[in-house]
Amino acid sequence: MRRRDFLKTAVWGGIGAVVAGLGRRRALAAAEPTKPTAGQQKLPNIIVIFADDMGYGDLGCFGHPTIRTPNLDRMAAEGAKLTQFYSACPVCTPSRAALLTGRLPIRTGMCSDRRRVLFPNSGGGLPAKETTIAEFLKTKGYATACVGKWHLGHLPQFLPTRRGFDSYYGIPYSNDMRPCPLLDDEKTVELPAKQATLTKRYTARCLKFIRTSKDRPFFLYYAQTFPHIPLFASKDFKGKSPRGLYGDVVEELDWSVGEILKTLRELKLAERTLVMFTSDNGPWLIMRLNGGSAGLLRGGKGSTWEGGMREPTIAWWPGVIRPGTLCTQLASTLDVLPTCAALAGVKLPTDRTYDGANLMPALTEGKSIRDVMYFYRGEQLYAVRKGPWKLHFTTQAGYRDKPHKHDPPLLFHLDNDPSEQFDLAKKNPAVVEEIKNLAAAHKKTVKPVVNQLEIPLRKK
Amino acid sequence: MRRRDFLKTAVWGGIGAVVAGLGRRRALAAAEPTKPTAGQQKLPNIIVIFADDMGYGDLGCFGHPTIRTPNLDRMAAEGAKLTQFYSACPVCTPSRAALLTGRLPIRTGMCSDRRRVLFPNSGGGLPAKETTIAEFLKTKGYATACVGKWHLGHLPQFLPTRRGFDSYYGIPYSNDMRPCPLLDDEKTVELPAKQATLTKRYTARCLKFIRTSKDRPFFLYYAQTFPHIPLFASKDFKGKSPRGLYGDVVEELDWSVGEILKTLRELKLAERTLVMFTSDNGPWLIMRLNGGSAGLLRGGKGSTWEGGMREPTIAWWPGVIRPGTLCTQLASTLDVLPTCAALAGVKLPTDRTYDGANLMPALTEGKSIRDVMYFYRGEQLYAVRKGPWKLHFTTQAGYRDKPHKHDPPLLFHLDNDPSEQFDLAKKNPAVVEEIKNLAAAHKKTVKPVVNQLEIPLRKK
Repeated sequence: MRRRDFLKTAVWGGIGAVVAGLGRRRALAAAEPTKPTAGQQKLPNIIVIFADDMGYGDLGCFGHPTIRTPNLDRMAAEGAKLTQFYSACPVCTPSRAALLTGRLPIRTGMCSDRRRVLFPNSGGGLPAKETTIAEFLKTKGYATACVGKWHLGHLPQFLPTRRGFDSYYGIPYSNDMRPCPLLDDEKTVELPAKQATLTKRYTARCLKFIRTSKDRPFFLYYAQTFPHIPLFASKDFKGKSPRGLYGDVVEELDWSVGEILKTLRELKLAERTLVMFTSDNGPWLIMRLNGGSAGLLRGGKGSTWEGGMREPTIAWWPGVIRPGTLCTQLASTLDVLPTCAALAGVKLPTDRTYDGANLMPALTEGKSIRDVMYFYRGEQLYAVRKGPWKLHFTTQAGYRDKPHKHDPPLLFHLDNDPSEQFDLAKKNPAVVEEIKNLAAAHKKTVKPVVNQLEIPLRKK
Repeated sequence: MRRRDFLKTAVWGGIGAVVAGLGRRRALAAAEPTKPTAGQQKLPNIIVIFADDMGYGDLGCFGHPTIRTPNLDRMAAEGAKLTQFYSACPVCTPSRAALLTGRLPIRTGMCSDRRRVLFPNSGGGLPAKETTIAEFLKTKGYATACVGKWHLGHLPQFLPTRRGFDSYYGIPYSNDMRPCPLLDDEKTVELPAKQATLTKRYTARCLKFIRTSKDRPFFLYYAQTFPHIPLFASKDFKGKSPRGLYGDVVEELDWSVGEILKTLRELKLAERTLVMFTSDNGPWLIMRLNGGSAGLLRGGKGSTWEGGMREPTIAWWPGVIRPGTLCTQLASTLDVLPTCAALAGVKLPTDRTYDGANLMPALTEGKSIRDVMYFYRGEQLYAVRKGPWKLHFTTQAGYRDKPHKHDPPLLFHLDNDPSEQFDLAKKNPAVVEEIKNLAAAHKKTVKPVVNQLEIPLRKK
């Protein structure tokens, strides 16, 4: 039954229609090399690779001098480098909830001012009434897998296998939380998880999933455990990077991405697969040399300064995204779900607010797909970006600092001043006013919901 | 006579010998496509492109989010990106003197604690007893040209045409100094120079020189006037960059580099030409939005923090330097002269100290060519790098700040901590001691010389 639905909807040429605005000639060029015979017609595959606590400046192609990332650099050279792509939140749980639901965490109850993320003693998780990318893509016959860190609820009802994923292999929350089990679907297979070999094992699972799913459209959500601390690299990488252990870990992650792209090429799936690489939030600066670098950006994890939420992002789809594309358009993890929906022909429900847009016109034509970005820390709206302008109502340097309220707010022109150094509020009162009004209007769209991060774990 | 010397020394295959360590097979592969018939045999061409006040973080391939540098990015992708390449000094005149002589400015009298650079009221310049790259290459029959900013003395006896260059076209010192004439050889052809079209005119001169010199080995020293302030871009670029005027200027410079590489390809000279791109010092941060960005590095122009002296550097030589090379080896503008000498078969004089080494083994084989770097501000040794370790005796944040002496000195591990955040001196007393001894030994090699920057202009 599901299989028949899939065949009915997945007519070839669908890609041409959903890759919005893509020139007919280029769409055909992309499709032809792998054009399937009737009955094998497919929707595009989608792979989202999500690093944990990686900084904007931690890849070679984003300017790091000593971390060697040849695979990610090549991925960027063959595809698009996105230099103004944001996570939806500067910490883990809300950021992941936003990616998978396409909705700001303030709408789903997946953020909190008191508990920043879910913990092993949390009883909450992503509410059942929210719909994940995987759940949407299942309706179109996708094979789906989640590999890596989940962090959207560790109780059985919240696990990936209950949220649209056919399979799961990974850890249920951050790797510094105890106990840290390794789950295979819903079963604990290792306690504590042996972290030094996690990247290798995650990679093997990803490749196995790709190979076994190659004749179906598939969705792979590969949420890396690293470079979140504690840092672990396998013996092939440990002690090898000039950047020390942090570099070892990122270089192994780079290797892992390379294996995935290589496998796609081998299986001749490259031209029918969108691969996106990004991170959940900025670098955890208080970890000093075990934390990453935000490059030229200010602040890091936990902060709504750029360093906390702007992520090193790459999109790759040979034949569809032109090699060497530089995408400076404003975009976000909130746009991933609408992109997947557009590519798979999913019609999104109209009973809820979505906070993103289909990315493809930005990737293939350099078109603007969104003009506004909201920067939340927990439940508080700290800043709003409109076009190149970002207005900070409140700032907080990092993870443990106190908030500083700004009245008048601080205004930065990010295209010109990505490091947020020169406050231009006084010179641009109209811009300040416009963004203040945007913020007020936005707040009215937010309805109270149950806070999932504050639900305690009930004793059995 | 000169012509005969040139033919005698420039036997083909010389390249194979001087490109140190290059595998025989690769050297041949590089040579074959353009292998000349007898009588046309040539030494490799060399082009050095030197930006002015460009920051480490100002190119796309070095991590800038909104400055678009597709030509330099492609140059890096086709060649080598050097991420630990230093100018010899954090300000203009000494930096240029070091590049062209291969010697620290403290040895040539081209630095001063009282006058940082040469000014229109200066009477000094690069001493006649120093030998420039151009002068060495002339002995091997090279055609030589200097295009752009000179800043090594504006009196006739100091001009490029007296220092080994067959021709000169450019401004004699910084573009913020008055009067700022445009010289053609030694003649003022415009006063003041019309700066908005300088980059276009410089580019035309470079291309003309390459075309007219294509049958000889040639050396082009293209020292850009920008992005030193005041910023000017031609109408094709002005108002186009998201990064504002600074971005316009860098994007025009990128275009200019692209024109040069395109011309080399057209003339089938690419495989016999080494092109190097770098900058004279870090970004002039006090110029705020009209200054550049050092990316993740600390400090800028005028400072011996990394941001003052580590430069965005690219080396390009199709067929010799492997595409996509990441060169993290320690290297410097001081290495350019020894590289040119090695490539052209010039034997350097032994009556003076040279402070660099041939770069080619670093570019073609990833070999270490130097282990130590001295960081001078004016006549003072502020810091020393040995391997990954940098010891600061004195620091000074920028151009106008006061010096801070450190006793004990500050120690940073730059491979691990490029942003110089975490002082490790206390944990590594042996490293501190070793570098202190290096500094003391180095100081003994420095002999007193006439300070050229403090010589006043005599009235006629």
